[in-house]
Amino acid sequence: MKDFIFYNRTKIIFGKNTQQQVGEELKLAGAKKILIHYGSDRIKKNGLFDQVTKSLDSANIKYVELGWVVANPRVSKVREGIELAKKEDIDFILAIGGGSAIDSAKGIAAGVYYEGDVWDFYEHKVIAEKAMPIATILTIPAAGSESSSGTVVTNEEIKRKKAFGSPLLQPIFSILNPEFTKTLPDYQTACGASDMLAHVFERYFVATKNVDVTDRLCLAHMKSIMKNARLVLENPNDYDLRAEIMLAGYIAHNGWLDVGRTRGDWASHIIEHELSAEYDMAHGAGLAIIFPAWMKYVYKENIARFELFAKEVFGIDKTGEEGVLLAISKLEEFYKEIGMPRRMSEANIENPDIKKLSSQASGQGTIGQFKELTKEDVEKIYELAK
Amino acid sequence: MKDFIFYNRTKIIFGKNTQQQVGEELKLAGAKKILIHYGSDRIKKNGLFDQVTKSLDSANIKYVELGWVVANPRVSKVREGIELAKKEDIDFILAIGGGSAIDSAKGIAAGVYYEGDVWDFYEHKVIAEKAMPIATILTIPAAGSESSSGTVVTNEEIKRKKAFGSPLLQPIFSILNPEFTKTLPDYQTACGASDMLAHVFERYFVATKNVDVTDRLCLAHMKSIMKNARLVLENPNDYDLRAEIMLAGYIAHNGWLDVGRTRGDWASHIIEHELSAEYDMAHGAGLAIIFPAWMKYVYKENIARFELFAKEVFGIDKTGEEGVLLAISKLEEFYKEIGMPRRMSEANIENPDIKKLSSQASGQGTIGQFKELTKEDVEKIYELAK
Repeated sequence: MKDFIFYNRTKIIFGKNTQQQVGEELKLAGAKKILIHYGSDRIKKNGLFDQVTKSLDSANIKYVELGWVVANPRVSKVREGIELAKKEDIDFILAIGGGSAIDSAKGIAAGVYYEGDVWDFYEHKVIAEKAMPIATILTIPAAGSESSSGTVVTNEEIKRKKAFGSPLLQPIFSILNPEFTKTLPDYQTACGASDMLAHVFERYFVATKNVDVTDRLCLAHMKSIMKNARLVLENPNDYDLRAEIMLAGYIAHNGWLDVGRTRGDWASHIIEHELSAEYDMAHGAGLAIIFPAWMKYVYKENIARFELFAKEVFGIDKTGEEGVLLAISKLEEFYKEIGMPRRMSEANIENPDIKKLSSQASGQGTIGQFKELTKEDVEKIYELAK
Repeated sequence: MKDFIFYNRTKIIFGKNTQQQVGEELKLAGAKKILIHYGSDRIKKNGLFDQVTKSLDSANIKYVELGWVVANPRVSKVREGIELAKKEDIDFILAIGGGSAIDSAKGIAAGVYYEGDVWDFYEHKVIAEKAMPIATILTIPAAGSESSSGTVVTNEEIKRKKAFGSPLLQPIFSILNPEFTKTLPDYQTACGASDMLAHVFERYFVATKNVDVTDRLCLAHMKSIMKNARLVLENPNDYDLRAEIMLAGYIAHNGWLDVGRTRGDWASHIIEHELSAEYDMAHGAGLAIIFPAWMKYVYKENIARFELFAKEVFGIDKTGEEGVLLAISKLEEFYKEIGMPRRMSEANIENPDIKKLSSQASGQGTIGQFKELTKEDVEKIYELAK
């Protein structure tokens, strides 16, 4: 087992009406004037925004707002948030929404204390030494950004989607009320399930000697996500099922599942990021396209790891290539069942520029660690995903 | 799913040589003069104590020491620690050892700011409003006290063992180095495995509507504990196996496995506490005696829950009573294999005073929630465990 330090400071406040606690929690955290950063006006139509500002007023917390963060959040919006936060003397950021609003808020949190351009963090030119504290009210379970230290943002001018992380970006608290996810469109619910499943895949499929304890937690969690994703799409108004999926997304990316392991593979995420930056598709949909292709390309590196996956997640007793390929086809069936595309063609991406995508994904070196992938390897994975 | 708040502040520093970081971590936490609270002189013989004090000296942290905390730690030692901490102007407590040293340190941490007798907390007469910060260096994986908010202490004058908890008692950090567990006697290793397994049982066997996500994590974790307990007893010097068990004990009791669930059943723990207080036996051994008896007595309350346990943990496809009783006998086999007693008679307890034990365990009302147990129910469980 690898040496590790585990620390996750995010306080999770989960359940019905929990949004009403936001003012008190912010006061506890020392906030005086906050930036409310959110996605669409869905939160204004469904009453959430009003409930939040009422709670802020009761706690004597001032606020300004910046909305309309889009999926695959843009660095231009992050820059706008930084300027606004500086101008308005903001001391705390509250993100309301899914991974996009939260990741955008994290960019603002890091950028507000930095004199250069915030994109430098995403290019890994500088390391964040200070960040404004943030909190979140999660309305779309998917990215796990509500307790993670990472942020992913798209630079629309150069069509690149990039990530960086720092413990300073872990939210102080996150409020998760499954009620607000009941009205999510099926497609978004399914994209979320695909994203959280991918977060467990990235952690499970690692090259180093496995850790039995977290292997078993990962495999159990994959089963939970697939089972509950199917159920919630059949019963979108069921509070308990919405709660299971919301809890599952948090657990998939809060660090519990990879203690003692290496950092995870993450090649599929990098390969997907190029796809969604270039074609502006949902990240979860992109992952459903990329993961089966990645699996087909790499499984021979450690077939035992895939055999255990096949057995524990799909109950497949066949071993060797046959069992593994059967498991991958079962995974593709799952994606189809929940309405995800499994090939670029199914997402209306015709004639993708694979040379360009591969070159950008692999950068100057290799990506991933289950199998270290060169540009040529990445090309073959995109080909399998066409 | 039940509403919940999850927060666990304990930073886990896990791996080889991590004890050398203790001085720096204490400095980071603001400690100036600490109380080192430990069990036997094993830590002086194996070099750990010297490495710790060297690290403290480098970080300019003063210390006094109070050792010889025994298994089933005594409230008299806690009182001694409180007096010493007051006299020496201690501002931080470092526990080195297993659950006993840590639980004793937690008692001191709460008692040092309280004018009355510390036993009042364990009698639930008062609630802790302030506690001295503590950190731990864990040398015996078992109790999970290294990240929990609970403490269990025995009042030897009245032969009662009682628990209380407060978020204030969660350690600031805990250092886990599996190297120091390699020389543990087999019996202690097995008692530890039994204790952590029981912590998952208490969380899994709850009466409320189940939470699928954490059910599956609990069941997966039971399997990991049983598998790795067997393996580590065959290979006591294997670092990776020692690491698996040490990690398993942390996960079993750090709160991850019961988010969204009710507080757990905990009747078996209460029933066991009377046994180990009266006969001064190891807590893990007592749990191996009590849990099968409890299971036999209560399974009819929710047979489906036991069927899932039988299937997932022992691969038993038979349903109904037959499958459940088979699973309980498999559990007893496991206890036997790792050298745990399964009946009081196997622990040399002849003619136990069941009336007295039951009356003390059940107090004025009922205990547990999977089935609410009266004094008469508890008597029958002790009878099954004779």
